[in-house]
Amino acid sequence: MLKTTTFLFLAAVTSTALDAKQPIALVIHGGAGTISPSTMTPEKEAAYQADLNKALDAGYKVLEQGGSSLDAVTQAVKVMEDSPLFNAGKGAVYTFDGEHELDAAIMRGDTKAAGAVAGVKIVKNPIELARRVMEKSEHVMLAGRGAEQFAKEQGLELVDNRYFDTPFRLEALNKAKAVLEKLPHQASVRLAPEFQPSWNMGTVGAVAIDRQGNLAAATSTGGMTAKRYGRIGDAPVIGAGTYADNQSCAVSATGHGEFFIRYQVAADICARVKYAGIAADKAAETVIQQVLKPIGGTGGVIVIDSKGQVSWSFNTEGMYRAKKIEGQNAVFGIYQQNMR
Amino acid sequence: MLKTTTFLFLAAVTSTALDAKQPIALVIHGGAGTISPSTMTPEKEAAYQADLNKALDAGYKVLEQGGSSLDAVTQAVKVMEDSPLFNAGKGAVYTFDGEHELDAAIMRGDTKAAGAVAGVKIVKNPIELARRVMEKSEHVMLAGRGAEQFAKEQGLELVDNRYFDTPFRLEALNKAKAVLEKLPHQASVRLAPEFQPSWNMGTVGAVAIDRQGNLAAATSTGGMTAKRYGRIGDAPVIGAGTYADNQSCAVSATGHGEFFIRYQVAADICARVKYAGIAADKAAETVIQQVLKPIGGTGGVIVIDSKGQVSWSFNTEGMYRAKKIEGQNAVFGIYQQNMR
Repeated sequence: MLKTTTFLFLAAVTSTALDAKQPIALVIHGGAGTISPSTMTPEKEAAYQADLNKALDAGYKVLEQGGSSLDAVTQAVKVMEDSPLFNAGKGAVYTFDGEHELDAAIMRGDTKAAGAVAGVKIVKNPIELARRVMEKSEHVMLAGRGAEQFAKEQGLELVDNRYFDTPFRLEALNKAKAVLEKLPHQASVRLAPEFQPSWNMGTVGAVAIDRQGNLAAATSTGGMTAKRYGRIGDAPVIGAGTYADNQSCAVSATGHGEFFIRYQVAADICARVKYAGIAADKAAETVIQQVLKPIGGTGGVIVIDSKGQVSWSFNTEGMYRAKKIEGQNAVFGIYQQNMR
Repeated sequence: MLKTTTFLFLAAVTSTALDAKQPIALVIHGGAGTISPSTMTPEKEAAYQADLNKALDAGYKVLEQGGSSLDAVTQAVKVMEDSPLFNAGKGAVYTFDGEHELDAAIMRGDTKAAGAVAGVKIVKNPIELARRVMEKSEHVMLAGRGAEQFAKEQGLELVDNRYFDTPFRLEALNKAKAVLEKLPHQASVRLAPEFQPSWNMGTVGAVAIDRQGNLAAATSTGGMTAKRYGRIGDAPVIGAGTYADNQSCAVSATGHGEFFIRYQVAADICARVKYAGIAADKAAETVIQQVLKPIGGTGGVIVIDSKGQVSWSFNTEGMYRAKKIEGQNAVFGIYQQNMR
């Protein structure tokens, strides 16, 4: 008798959980940095808006049809990887040696399973490889040729490294190298005032919450223009550029990666939510504006918490971004002020 | 007049800070895992104790002479890298292809500067390369051949990959491959019950607090026996296997790296201290025993908090470890119970 009662009680709980119907939401970014309205043409702005909307639609459609947040962020990031406008996939920046080395990471908030790849040169969609690492390997992080070998075995679409060439990014490399030539060999491209952070602009990311209330985060990037020495930024470092935990929030970051690794930006925002009981939007604002900004850690984040609250914060002139919350119109933005 | 008063006041504060004389402390580990007293000989135990003591002495001497915690952890880890007993430097495990790929990271708690390297094959002391990355580059994480190129430019000691060969680790590789041959190609070496976690044993690490109250952490490893696909574990992932923050604590981890990345073990312990106000030893115990153990995340951590409190926690049969706190005798341990 006791057994029957327990069974009915459990069934009731399960039913309630299913009935809860978490409102779905998706937020994406296409990089933060120096985006001055003075250098932006209406055509360029329209092009960015079109591709961000395409990515937002692709991801949101998944959620609307009852799909997982994991599928939604994968699809949204894939669309941005396939666009030449962003520093990820097709539009990846050039390394010092004139190649492209791509990084990506993905994480699901329910199981905290994660996958990441660093320094891959021939994988068309690094976010798909990161997901395969999460789902088809026992590992979390794979790098370089080994990661590419795994991509081959997984049957992912491979391309010649030249597929990632774009005139805009080549111009950025040439400008960066002209600056580097005037500096001591070990000097920083980032620390040189002549080096424009805009040359790296365009890391992409997405965070989502699905009908079941599960969070997911994904980030993909070409890294830093003229990067050398196998540099790995924050995007593929779980906890730095990408993190998801159903107990707190999901975060995807973009910016000066070294600061985001040292300050564990994505995980720190989630930790403030989880342990200090701070709202996710306030935690993001604190980390981006009060922790990172004073030390020169330029960049931004997009966040969704476990209740579905959506936010973003950035300490740069602009961040390409868009969001769609169930029952509300999609919102697109570039600069600090204007949003529409 | 006011100016003079202010000056004197500041001088007094500075003097007080110097007089405070933080008691120094150093704790090191040489890996956690299946170390059964039944498979351990007195000779083997003595050898491990001798090399751990050598590392402890080297690091503690730095602190005693007024040196920095950063120098102390560098020296302690370097000694363990040079020992064939540990899975780091000289004693690194073999990859599936019969090579050695080494990872290391270092972080200082005052500035939160950090350096990490992954997948290097020809650098004798990866911890020294991680430190050069932190101090001589603008980056935090370098991987593969790029990292080796940086090592060359920095004039670090390079060796042939065969320098890292040891009969004990080759035997482990052969046993691992025999297990792998019987499994489906993508199957996990870790998930196979025949695969002994002891084959990977021996990641090394050190955390220290110096006279100025500055924390530092360092970790170095050869990773996982028979690893493939450019796998990167937790040791070089800042926040996962290595973290230091003067506002909370310094942590070095050892164990099944994938879990330590997903659960952000080092940063999570520090976050619990910083945001939830939990004591560092309790935070470490909670993460290792209550978060990681139930999900099969085997391993352990060594911790020093900002007040100099030293602790360790592990959910495996044993963890090679030693500590020296100012005014106390050095403590050495292998198993859960016996400590001397």
